[in-house]
Formats: sequence, C-alpha cells, structure tokens
Amino acid sequence: MSKKYAIGIDLGGTNLRVALVSAEGEIVRKIKRSSSEQVFDSLVESIEEVKHGEIAGIGLGVAGIIDRKNGRVFSSPNLRAVEGIDLVHGIQRKFNVPVFLENDANAAALGEKVSGAGKNFESFVLLTLGTGIGGGIIHKGELLDVAAEAGHMSINAEADKCPCGNIGCLENYASARAMIARAVAMLEKGTESILKECCKGSIYKITPEDIYKAALEGDTLSREILREAGKALGVGIANMINVLSPEAIILAGGLIGAWNIYVQEAIREASRRAFKDLFDSVKIIPSSLGDEAGTVGAASLVFMKIEKNTQPRF
Amino acid sequence: MSKKYAIGIDLGGTNLRVALVSAEGEIVRKIKRSSSEQVFDSLVESIEEVKHGEIAGIGLGVAGIIDRKNGRVFSSPNLRAVEGIDLVHGIQRKFNVPVFLENDANAAALGEKVSGAGKNFESFVLLTLGTGIGGGIIHKGELLDVAAEAGHMSINAEADKCPCGNIGCLENYASARAMIARAVAMLEKGTESILKECCKGSIYKITPEDIYKAALEGDTLSREILREAGKALGVGIANMINVLSPEAIILAGGLIGAWNIYVQEAIREASRRAFKDLFDSVKIIPSSLGDEAGTVGAASLVFMKIEKNTQPRF
Repeated sequence: MSKKYAIGIDLGGTNLRVALVSAEGEIVRKIKRSSSEQVFDSLVESIEEVKHGEIAGIGLGVAGIIDRKNGRVFSSPNLRAVEGIDLVHGIQRKFNVPVFLENDANAAALGEKVSGAGKNFESFVLLTLGTGIGGGIIHKGELLDVAAEAGHMSINAEADKCPCGNIGCLENYASARAMIARAVAMLEKGTESILKECCKGSIYKITPEDIYKAALEGDTLSREILREAGKALGVGIANMINVLSPEAIILAGGLIGAWNIYVQEAIREASRRAFKDLFDSVKIIPSSLGDEAGTVGAASLVFMKIEKNTQPRF
Repeated sequence: MSKKYAIGIDLGGTNLRVALVSAEGEIVRKIKRSSSEQVFDSLVESIEEVKHGEIAGIGLGVAGIIDRKNGRVFSSPNLRAVEGIDLVHGIQRKFNVPVFLENDANAAALGEKVSGAGKNFESFVLLTLGTGIGGGIIHKGELLDVAAEAGHMSINAEADKCPCGNIGCLENYASARAMIARAVAMLEKGTESILKECCKGSIYKITPEDIYKAALEGDTLSREILREAGKALGVGIANMINVLSPEAIILAGGLIGAWNIYVQEAIREASRRAFKDLFDSVKIIPSSLGDEAGTVGAASLVFMKIEKNTQPRF
C-alpha cells in the first residue's frame, strides 16, 4: 500500500476524537474536542489539523444507527445533528479521498482487533460501558457490519420504558445513566449513604466514580448499586454468549474502572446463566486501547475496505 | 465438482431425517424415523438406506451446543445420547467421506439460504419455533458458526428458571412447551375454556394445534395464550433486530401454523420495540422448506466446506 496513514474519527455524543493512524493501528497524531452542533465544520477543521501528507482515506465512527446502504446515520439519540445529513459525501468531496462510515462501538471493536485486547481472538463481542451501552461484534477476524446494539436488548420485557422506545433494555440497568438514576432515587427517598456528602451536597452531580469510591469505603448503597448494575450486565453478557458464542467478551468504557465490584458481579452472574460449555470457552477481559479504540478502528476500516477493494458507499 | 450429491442429516430430539441432496439443494431421496438412543447405529443404517453411488460427504445437523473445535456435541438436553460421543469421526471412518457437524437450527438456516425463503437475502436470522426455540444466523450470505441459541436469551431476567440454567429465557414464554404449560396451569385453576373438552378430556395431551383451533373458534383462554406467547416472541425478535439488524427474520417450525394470531402479535410487538429504522428494513416471513430445511442445509454444508477447501475437524 502506498499511503501509510488514514484518519480515524470517533464522533460520540460528548467528544469528537480525530487521529492520524498507521496501517498497523498506531496513532501518530491526535486531537480531542467536544462534540459540536456544527458537526460538518467541526469535522473538517479537525481533519485539517491532524492531516499530514497524503492519506489513504477517512473512517468515521458515529454513535447511532447506521444506514450502510446510503452512508448515512439513521438516528443518533445523543447527537441529533448528524441525523439525515450526508456527512460521508460531504467529507469525501472536501478531501477527495474514500470515506467510510461505521457505528462508533463497531469501530472500537475493530480497533481492539487490529491492535488491542482482541488481537489474538478470532471472535469477540466488545461492549462499551458508559453513559449508555454499545456493542461491536468481531467474527472470523472481521467486523460484522450489523447494528450490535447490545445495550438495547430487552432483558426485562415487562419493566421500564427505555428512551429508545423498547422496554427493559440492558442499558436501563447496567449503564452509568442507570447507576446514577438509582443513586439519586434512593438518596431522594432518604436512604443512608456517604454519597450524600459528595459533590458538595448536590446529589444530582454524582458520577459513577463517586459511587465506586464510596463503595470501596464500604458504603452499602453504593455497593448495592454497583452489584445490581453488574448483575444486569451479566444477564446481557450471558445473552451475547448464548447467541454469539465468542472467544472473548471485551469490556470498554469508563465503567470498567469499577471492575472489582461491577464487572466481577457481571462475570459471576453470566457464569450462572450462560450455557456452561460456552461460558467455559469465553474470556472476559478489559479493552486495552481505552478511548483510542474508536479512532484506531475507524482508520483501520479504511485500510480494510481498500484492501478488499470495497467501494465507499455514496 | 465431480460428486453431485451429499447426504444431509437432521438429528433432533424427536426425529431423525436423512436425505440425499444435490449441490443445488434439491432432495432426491429421503427418510424419516424416530430419534433413537442407539444414535450411531441408527445413523449408519439410515445413511446406507439413502446413499446412492458416490457422495461428496455427509453433513450432520444436531440439536445442541456444538464443540466446533473437536467436532463433538458439548450438550444436547433433548438427545443426551449424542453428548460426548465421537459421531463425526465414527461416521467418517465408516463411509470414508468428509463429515461436517453443525447445530440443527444453524443447518436449517443454511438450507433456507441455499434453496428456501432466504435465497434472496444476504443476511437473516432463522428462528425455529417448536417445543423449544432455536436459531441460525446468515450474514453476507454465509452461515455464522456461532451458537445462535436465541431461545436462551433472557428476556425476563428476574423470572422463571429455564431448564438450561438461565432465568427468563425466551423459550420459557414463546415456545410450544410454554404455551402448553400455560394452558394446563390455567385449566387446572379452573379457567373456563373449550380446551377442557379436547383430547378426550385429558388436558395433559393438549397440543399447540388444539390451542390454535380453539382460538379460531373464539376461545378466550386460547387466544390469550397465543397472544402472550406471540408478544414474548416479539421481544426476542426485537432483540435480534437490534443486535443483528438482518434483512429478514425467517420463522420456521410447527408453531408458524398459528401465524395469524401468534406471529402477527409477535410482529406487532417487535415493531413497537426494535429501532424503527431497523424494523422498517426487515422482512418477517415464514420458512419455505419447512421440515426439509435441516437436511438440505446439512448437505449444503458439505458442498460449501469442500468448495472452500475446509478440512473436516477431527
């Protein structure tokens, strides 16, 4: 391949990350800024900032449901600004290189495969555990171009409505949003907890880190919140194991900081639920690229599609 | 390819089906018998009965969790006799042709792809709706060699224990077993229903067909049972859509006879739950090969693996 670098973009609800990445998956330059309503201008500026010489193409990982046929974003609840606009075509015209679009968690899964924790696995499911829960699936060493919205798998069909429209989604029980909502609700009810004293007394500013810290100090409520969320995550992991029987489940996102309580509980619960032989064949491990997985994966998409001679779709 | 035929075997908990199938997926000879505890002898006899001239190989679709690495069946709750025995190697030695092993619902999915309702789809999920619920996944025209145990995805994390060890599995709510259990429980409680008069008064012999017939005659309990089961199926279908975003969901198995109530309810429920854009892109249709899908698919496995030069694994 003549061009050694591609640009990988990770456009989530909160942050925009752009990196210049080698064919081997190494980041040579990168920037991070807040996601903006002016998505297109913000993307163009960031690409220009990072670009250096000729590039093979641009890979775009965007939070949301991807319309692969038309290279658009069907819907992106946390980033409405990208819905319906023709990002791919626009960027392609601007920079005159191939542009490829994927879901952000899918791109992160590919990143982990190329140069992260998934390098030695032929099949794995990546789950991103943050405000929401996303997923990406690698099978026979390749990214499955499917929605992989594992966070919006119902695990309690008759329970709470999810903002996505479904009922009882995994994300409603196992995400940071779920943990914080539960903490606030319990504190409002008057439950005793050292969480009351954190965030200068404003319980509405509690973060998952606060909950984990309080749990390590022995706070009962915080431990329970983490364990309950972990248990729900375990149900989701068991479902993914029973359906996709991967070699590994790779966990990414801010919540894996609470590994010792939250993830351990998830592993315990999944071990009780998944088919024994499938559970015994799966490794449940943390991501190794962390926040870089998305940009690395998006850039890798470019090299892979070009190698396979896949035409960008627009 | 020199050898035009392969033998496809569908070994479920109840029936053993063996067919001689062309490379185009057409059955030229077939037999069906009850599954027997003497699995190996029974297979050998049936193969000899159907075999005609030279064959390219033998494909074996077996109900259960498949150990693809070693060509064995990890576990098969409805057919314990196949667990742990080296069927693949045994049959290969006996007939001196390549033998390939798959899960029965996976084989059925491949059958539908080769010459059934899935022929024109590049990606679909097949769900077999019978005593239990099985699944098979086709992606980019190929069978994913994963467990695809969609029936053992938990949709009610805190509810009823499933015989598989998990809690709240789809199969506990949407299968024939679930419908019958619910009918019996309600009748035992004294619920009014014309089902009481069926099966010569023995409610323990009620079949899904009886329930569907009674529902068509306006029986309230029967309609409710079918609708509730359909609703649960819809939750499972929505989960599969949100995770795998297939072009189609193909429904197979005895229960699709109750399409007008059971499946219609499932489609309605899935439409409320799955991401709208994904639901709008999916077709939910019946299998066209019916009971033949398994043998056709198992035989197709032989042609595909040989074409790809895949070595049988033993």
